[in-house]
Amino acid sequence: MLRVAYPVTLSPELFRDFPQGIELIPVSDAMDHAVEVDVWIPDPYSTRAIRTWPHLRGVKLVLSMMAGTEWIPETVGPHVTICNARGAHNISTAEWTVAAILAMLKYFPLYLDIQHAGVWKRRFEASAHYAAITGDARPQYPPILQEELTGKAVLLVGYGAIGKEIERMLGPFDVKVLRVARRARMEPEVLSVSQLDGLLPRADIVVLILPATAESRGLIGERQLGLLRHGALLVNAARGPIVNTDSLVEALHSGRIRAALDVTDPEPLPDGHPLWRCPNLLLTPHIGGSTPQFAPRALRTAADELRRYLRGVPLKNVVQAAV
Amino acid sequence: MLRVAYPVTLSPELFRDFPQGIELIPVSDAMDHAVEVDVWIPDPYSTRAIRTWPHLRGVKLVLSMMAGTEWIPETVGPHVTICNARGAHNISTAEWTVAAILAMLKYFPLYLDIQHAGVWKRRFEASAHYAAITGDARPQYPPILQEELTGKAVLLVGYGAIGKEIERMLGPFDVKVLRVARRARMEPEVLSVSQLDGLLPRADIVVLILPATAESRGLIGERQLGLLRHGALLVNAARGPIVNTDSLVEALHSGRIRAALDVTDPEPLPDGHPLWRCPNLLLTPHIGGSTPQFAPRALRTAADELRRYLRGVPLKNVVQAAV
Repeated sequence: MLRVAYPVTLSPELFRDFPQGIELIPVSDAMDHAVEVDVWIPDPYSTRAIRTWPHLRGVKLVLSMMAGTEWIPETVGPHVTICNARGAHNISTAEWTVAAILAMLKYFPLYLDIQHAGVWKRRFEASAHYAAITGDARPQYPPILQEELTGKAVLLVGYGAIGKEIERMLGPFDVKVLRVARRARMEPEVLSVSQLDGLLPRADIVVLILPATAESRGLIGERQLGLLRHGALLVNAARGPIVNTDSLVEALHSGRIRAALDVTDPEPLPDGHPLWRCPNLLLTPHIGGSTPQFAPRALRTAADELRRYLRGVPLKNVVQAAV
Repeated sequence: MLRVAYPVTLSPELFRDFPQGIELIPVSDAMDHAVEVDVWIPDPYSTRAIRTWPHLRGVKLVLSMMAGTEWIPETVGPHVTICNARGAHNISTAEWTVAAILAMLKYFPLYLDIQHAGVWKRRFEASAHYAAITGDARPQYPPILQEELTGKAVLLVGYGAIGKEIERMLGPFDVKVLRVARRARMEPEVLSVSQLDGLLPRADIVVLILPATAESRGLIGERQLGLLRHGALLVNAARGPIVNTDSLVEALHSGRIRAALDVTDPEPLPDGHPLWRCPNLLLTPHIGGSTPQFAPRALRTAADELRRYLRGVPLKNVVQAAV
């Protein structure tokens, strides 16, 4: 019998479709004893999962519910195989990304301010916003009160499953898509991240959707932000440390660029942190994946992986093979 | 020489590609004399256009820059042909609609409040919002912090050019699309608006995108709002009077439904009107069409119509034929 540890925080209903031949063991960070298990499904909140780990013995396989697994190798060490839930976040995170891009181009943060104030004629503030953020201060009639996504140039930094899903959802908007990733490839054309500097000035919208690694830390710093077009929108749907926070705060205050972030560095962002108060920013507190469909989808992925493990078939979403 | 009156408010640059064989006459509501013209392109702001009309003589053709032309027949009378700028608002209005739907499903109004407050842990208010708006108060772990558009049922009320464009932009989200319009037809299936009551309970999202007419006034009143699902989203991208404002205010305060409006009745919405303060509402002040691309696109449509008029070819976007 394969012993599979799962977080006691999750409803047992979610495991109804798990394969026969396993024993499901609820575990938590509050356990007062150690348990012997073969497979561990960590709590989706990494801090809780990290506190659970010391109570586990014999783990050979970790099946994460998340796409990002950066905390797991340093917690469980090299002798454990780690799989992520590749695919489980595609739809929700891609939807958040498209939603954030459109919300910024339609000036929804400004219009919500106006809605709270309850003053219709303040709509013309949107024209001043357009002039300031794009640097195009020519008089316009009829006034410009929002922007279109259609026809804009979007640079995807990272082109894994979620990056592809974002591109798919952007399809009807006829955007020009540029792509960089760790390794260059063709069909569609993906350039090497080493060519990032040359691409940044060509994008209206830059979407970060790459894993947090030693190489991606600080990828977007002062120099990269300085290469962006006037009015460019930086979207971070990946991990906070990929962007240098101090440089971003400065760039936003310059009024030259705008940003939408679902992740920050540090995270959680402390109360009173300067990032909260930056202009031209939409900041959501890491909610991109947290939809009603998330847990069922992630556990379907884990169940599929377990079926392969039980049958001795190669696993599908290995991010670390045990050494 | 065909004499074409255009609003002095518009930049002459916008008329560069107009056909040969016409004389462009700038007109305004501040003129102190009458002018003889053949064709009138009214100011995009109808109040300004209505004040211009008494200064014009001999108008045979009105080329509106807008999709909605409801003020024009009563202003110019039945002996003038009226064309709208069918197509000029498709992209911008459809984008606004998709943006508004996503913003509401991602709880951006709540997250912007949290951003202004600068308190990360307030993200869990989103779970309470989900429970309240959907009526599903079961404990959820991991917490639900936003919703997905993918898989939802969208009812399009109205299926003209903009309705079709909205459907196209919703394509990647794999929504189930239901359609009603004045006349039923097939491929795709469009039901008659007389069947609206039967469809309202089947929709997660109801998008109003039909013209303002005597028949559509008050189409969505107390009874129709009462037929909506718990947590349904009503989106008005058409004209304010299609919805009964008092009934909508009441329905929003009940907490059973949510709404996104780009148009209101009355409009402009007076300062202090109860609609401004309704919960579960995104209200933008009629900005759906006001992008940088709007004027060039609308005037391209008008120029095409003028070319047909000059060649004696039937006009394309006639909304009133002269009697």
